[in-house]
Amino acid sequence: MKKVAEDDPRRIVHSFKVGLAITLVSLFYYFDHLYVGFGSSAMWAVLTVIVVIEFSVGATLGKGLNRGLATFLAGTLGFGAHHLANLPGRELQPILLGIFVFILAATVSFIRFFPRMKVRYDYGLLIFMLTFCLISVSGYRDEEVLEMAHKRVSTILIGGFTAIFVCIFICPVWAGEDLHNLAANNLEKLASFLEGFGDEYFRKSSEPESNKASLQAYKSILNSKQSEESLVNFARWEPPHGPFRFRHPWKQYLKIGSLTRQCAYRIEALNGCLNSDVQASPETCRNFREAFIKASSETGKAVKGLASAMRTMTLPTGDCPQTAKSKNAADNLKSLLRTGLCEGIDIVEILEVATVASLLLDILACTEKISESIHE
Amino acid sequence: MKKVAEDDPRRIVHSFKVGLAITLVSLFYYFDHLYVGFGSSAMWAVLTVIVVIEFSVGATLGKGLNRGLATFLAGTLGFGAHHLANLPGRELQPILLGIFVFILAATVSFIRFFPRMKVRYDYGLLIFMLTFCLISVSGYRDEEVLEMAHKRVSTILIGGFTAIFVCIFICPVWAGEDLHNLAANNLEKLASFLEGFGDEYFRKSSEPESNKASLQAYKSILNSKQSEESLVNFARWEPPHGPFRFRHPWKQYLKIGSLTRQCAYRIEALNGCLNSDVQASPETCRNFREAFIKASSETGKAVKGLASAMRTMTLPTGDCPQTAKSKNAADNLKSLLRTGLCEGIDIVEILEVATVASLLLDILACTEKISESIHE
Repeated sequence: MKKVAEDDPRRIVHSFKVGLAITLVSLFYYFDHLYVGFGSSAMWAVLTVIVVIEFSVGATLGKGLNRGLATFLAGTLGFGAHHLANLPGRELQPILLGIFVFILAATVSFIRFFPRMKVRYDYGLLIFMLTFCLISVSGYRDEEVLEMAHKRVSTILIGGFTAIFVCIFICPVWAGEDLHNLAANNLEKLASFLEGFGDEYFRKSSEPESNKASLQAYKSILNSKQSEESLVNFARWEPPHGPFRFRHPWKQYLKIGSLTRQCAYRIEALNGCLNSDVQASPETCRNFREAFIKASSETGKAVKGLASAMRTMTLPTGDCPQTAKSKNAADNLKSLLRTGLCEGIDIVEILEVATVASLLLDILACTEKISESIHE
Repeated sequence: MKKVAEDDPRRIVHSFKVGLAITLVSLFYYFDHLYVGFGSSAMWAVLTVIVVIEFSVGATLGKGLNRGLATFLAGTLGFGAHHLANLPGRELQPILLGIFVFILAATVSFIRFFPRMKVRYDYGLLIFMLTFCLISVSGYRDEEVLEMAHKRVSTILIGGFTAIFVCIFICPVWAGEDLHNLAANNLEKLASFLEGFGDEYFRKSSEPESNKASLQAYKSILNSKQSEESLVNFARWEPPHGPFRFRHPWKQYLKIGSLTRQCAYRIEALNGCLNSDVQASPETCRNFREAFIKASSETGKAVKGLASAMRTMTLPTGDCPQTAKSKNAADNLKSLLRTGLCEGIDIVEILEVATVASLLLDILACTEKISESIHE
């Protein structure tokens, strides 16, 4: 429990915010003169707050807008269906309504499978179906559908605005900021692996396993796709805030993310070499060893430079010196490999590593391009 | 739209099932004598069906049980809170209730951050909070809390059972079966990459790019973690069905899945070599080339054997001949590399590939172990 709070202290603040928002809304029940206005529909305000309020501003706004819009549309349509079913007379009404409900429910359920709809409007579609069924069906009992719909929409608006207000104005959690930090953190994790990898690989087995655990931080990148996608989706609902202006290119983060993951896949392959039986012996040709460690750590430094440039959103001016250095080191390593300077050593696994390192360099260049495109 | 239906025709069936379930439940409104029993609470039955019914049986059962249990617990607790707040007199009641609601909402919101709770009981916790707030708050107005709670619980039970009934008895979609097929499919995708890789790698650039697209099927494995986890989670709610007995080791699928992904990460690295500038020329030493293609395709065949063993749930008897063959081919390749049979060729990238192939073999052995452990 302590760990959950320590991992992200904003979680505690969020819990209090939820409590506050619900207590605010239940004021409708406590004070008589407000109650008279809305009747038992006030329940819908409480319900809306609980369902809509989410950890980040983007998620709350997305759900709130989805709910508001879907309720309004479904309310209108439900009223129309109810009116239409009333025309042929009371006998046919239940049958007509049943057919309407069946068709609408089946259609909406099918639309929810569309990938694009699922990502942004899944909740709205659910609420659309829900409201339509409730209004058109309950209309059979209650002739005052219009008044009920009006009350319900207003209470949902009140609930939704309370949730959004509390979410934005009390210690807001911006999904865009989280996304930005996640992308920078992931780059830093790559960098710290690359910086530490060379030493670890040529470490004598007698030496203590100092920082092997810290090398494993990159593993979390491998499965980061889903959380990145949902953060991008939330961020697109958010208004401009902090350094993020209107129409911030959120989709670029997906590109950076996928490139970062491609790096991470290669690193996972590298990591396999750390644990394989045929490790490089510490006695391998010194020239080669130095060139290798240098290439790895310089690449690490270049990625770290990228990460900090991204974090502070400053455009790297021209060719970054770190990148040039890492390119140099890699070229050096490549030519060493080609000239076969170190004949006689067990080259199987060293070559593997070198190739992956050069792969990484390609990706590094690619990442840099994209990172620049963001800062434009 | 056509694509969504063609990808999985069960989606159409599911849409009709949703329509049917909702229409069934709205019968409560249409027939007077039923209506008298439940009053406007019948609305909760419609609401429950819409919210609970999901694509797979496991998801529906999980949501239904979560909702039922949470409603019952929260109803009891809400009634207790309402009673307790009534004791000191009418003046203090709103204040006490406000405090109760605040504490409970904040606590439950915090508990929802716990990873274990989030995975299995997130929906239940939401409903718990919702029902508690609705019952304890609306209780301030309505002295017949008990009767209301009773009605609501019964309508929710009716809605939940309708959803579960339709989901299980009309063309059920079992999450366990989907999970099983997903695991087998992923293994097959690995196999088809490995089988095709050798030829593609040594393909002359003048030849047409025949099956490059089919090689890319493995990409979907890279990000399969989340969908696997949710399927496992759903499958654990499901009753025994088909070949899956009670206490089927669903968690083993996570292990197999993560091993499959590790293979896929290596394959992603291999795939990078396909697109790199320094490709192996088709003129490389013929001996080496044959050994390499053989190792790759034999490994592919062995993985394919595993996949089909898994699909049919038959225990491979003793050492599978395919595995032995692929091991042979890999040993052959390794010794070729060590003796340096092909001096003078550009060995950088060939060696890389060979190392990854041997890595794959390690993982293959590992996967086989686990697959056997399942069939026990």
